[in-house]
Amino acid sequence: MGLDQIATKPHERLAEYLADDLAAVNALIAARMASEHAPRIPEVTAHLVGAGGKRLRPMLTLAAARMCGYEGPFHVHLAATVEFIHTATLLHDDVVDESAQRRGRPTANLLWDNKSSVLTGDYFFARAFQLMVEPGNLRVLSILSNAAATIAEGEVLQLTAAQDLRTDEDIYLKVVRGKTAALFSAATEVGGVIADQPKDVVQALFDFGDALGIAFQIADDLLDYDGDPAVTGKNIGDDFRERKLTLPVIKAVAKADAEERSFWSRVIEKGNQRDGDLERALENLARHGSIQSTRSDALAWAETAKAALGKLPDHELREMLLELSDYVVARLN
Amino acid sequence: MGLDQIATKPHERLAEYLADDLAAVNALIAARMASEHAPRIPEVTAHLVGAGGKRLRPMLTLAAARMCGYEGPFHVHLAATVEFIHTATLLHDDVVDESAQRRGRPTANLLWDNKSSVLTGDYFFARAFQLMVEPGNLRVLSILSNAAATIAEGEVLQLTAAQDLRTDEDIYLKVVRGKTAALFSAATEVGGVIADQPKDVVQALFDFGDALGIAFQIADDLLDYDGDPAVTGKNIGDDFRERKLTLPVIKAVAKADAEERSFWSRVIEKGNQRDGDLERALENLARHGSIQSTRSDALAWAETAKAALGKLPDHELREMLLELSDYVVARLN
Repeated sequence: MGLDQIATKPHERLAEYLADDLAAVNALIAARMASEHAPRIPEVTAHLVGAGGKRLRPMLTLAAARMCGYEGPFHVHLAATVEFIHTATLLHDDVVDESAQRRGRPTANLLWDNKSSVLTGDYFFARAFQLMVEPGNLRVLSILSNAAATIAEGEVLQLTAAQDLRTDEDIYLKVVRGKTAALFSAATEVGGVIADQPKDVVQALFDFGDALGIAFQIADDLLDYDGDPAVTGKNIGDDFRERKLTLPVIKAVAKADAEERSFWSRVIEKGNQRDGDLERALENLARHGSIQSTRSDALAWAETAKAALGKLPDHELREMLLELSDYVVARLN
Repeated sequence: MGLDQIATKPHERLAEYLADDLAAVNALIAARMASEHAPRIPEVTAHLVGAGGKRLRPMLTLAAARMCGYEGPFHVHLAATVEFIHTATLLHDDVVDESAQRRGRPTANLLWDNKSSVLTGDYFFARAFQLMVEPGNLRVLSILSNAAATIAEGEVLQLTAAQDLRTDEDIYLKVVRGKTAALFSAATEVGGVIADQPKDVVQALFDFGDALGIAFQIADDLLDYDGDPAVTGKNIGDDFRERKLTLPVIKAVAKADAEERSFWSRVIEKGNQRDGDLERALENLARHGSIQSTRSDALAWAETAKAALGKLPDHELREMLLELSDYVVARLN
């Protein structure tokens, strides 16, 4: 995501505020990823954990719980659960996408093999379920197991939808909820549930996570066509070359004439790409205002996230989450 | 396993006795595998469910619960959970083993692709966790999430152990517990827990499932070297050709002289197999009594399973499970 290169870094302020909790999460992750019997597991784990990552999702759980005045120990378990689920999906995504790099380092499927990535991912999932059982809260279990099903369903949906020009904005939103927003919203929601908050507070936390996740993913998809590689750390056109039908293209396809439609069909559905096709795609996006319209959508979701936070009581962490909401779309302006 | 070809079929008697419960399990599986959004999921599901399978694991849960006098509705949820976990592991195993056939039909990874198998497997896992939450029993959740972790750990362990001649009988047993016995023992244990049984009954149910699973897997591994293909439906030497270090070979390696050791290293570790190697492997197994010794181990585990059942009160279902324990090793005599 290249969050690091911009001067204002609300996720770093969050990490500083939550430093003790985050240290407890990291210690719990390290303890639970050990495997007495299977040396391949700590190898793969060290590779992933060593690669860092911003711990954005576990911080959402910690922030939600703390903002709601939670004083018990279990927000740490739930934050670690969320990170485990995230890591498991990364391992399986890299197999599915046949990726060679993740966070600037070779992926586990490249360093070891697809088998290790599939099975270690399964181990992370199982560890996540063990951890989430420990707080003994059935509502938390229901939220997190539902999120896991939504994630998996979204991933399978993406398999068939990503290269099918009939994919519309509704289907795109389902995929985005599956691949990103479902874990964000579960992360924030369980923070409120473990703190025993009333229904409207829990709903506001869910709505915040959902909207933040959608804004985050739309911004990510837009930057693939409209970002500055020096700032985002992503190359322009990666999704295009991988034939991923994301929101900017979906918007352009909806307004395409016959010739443009045949172009999109060739490059996305048939995967027959030639020199100059990315430039032609960018022209199409510009002609139909797709970049502009996608940016508006991302900004609107960020506003929805902030509006949800507005329903929560005043708190230092709430201010940081408001800034975070602006921040995930700030790169688009 | 080719359980079908032998005249005495205790699993069929179990299925007849548990017919109403099994019908409820099948209906629940069908209802929970539907996916509104991702058409690939019901496609893969229909392929797997259509292929049948004996529903052995869910029957163990149903039998355990009924034997303990359970009258509530949740043994059905737990049986479906167990079958979902089993199906998820089959999907991921086929990717890992690069299998082309399962139950005499092409595997999902061959019919669709590895991506669909990985992600649909994840969806089955997530559905399993949703289902197991519904009875609202934290002990059941702990047992099943621990089993999921043991299964995943065993699968990863097998990756490194299967082609390493240092793998001994202890490591083999850990792999077998992971790949087979952990789900058998969780299946029987949760049946007792949901029926609110005392500790010693639950322990006996666990011990029965554990020993039955180990007997079952050792028998399967033995038949790969010593079965009648017409009876077992398996070809002799499949594991050998796939370089899987199973118990008969582990026993022969432990007694190998330098020349034999170099043979096993070439064919299993290096995978450099020539004409006549399977015959030579079979001679080695015979020379060291490995077939005989493996058969003894399987029979001893079947006796352990029956001894555990002996601690449970008399019941028609207990008689069928005793017969089942004999049956899984009957093909070895």
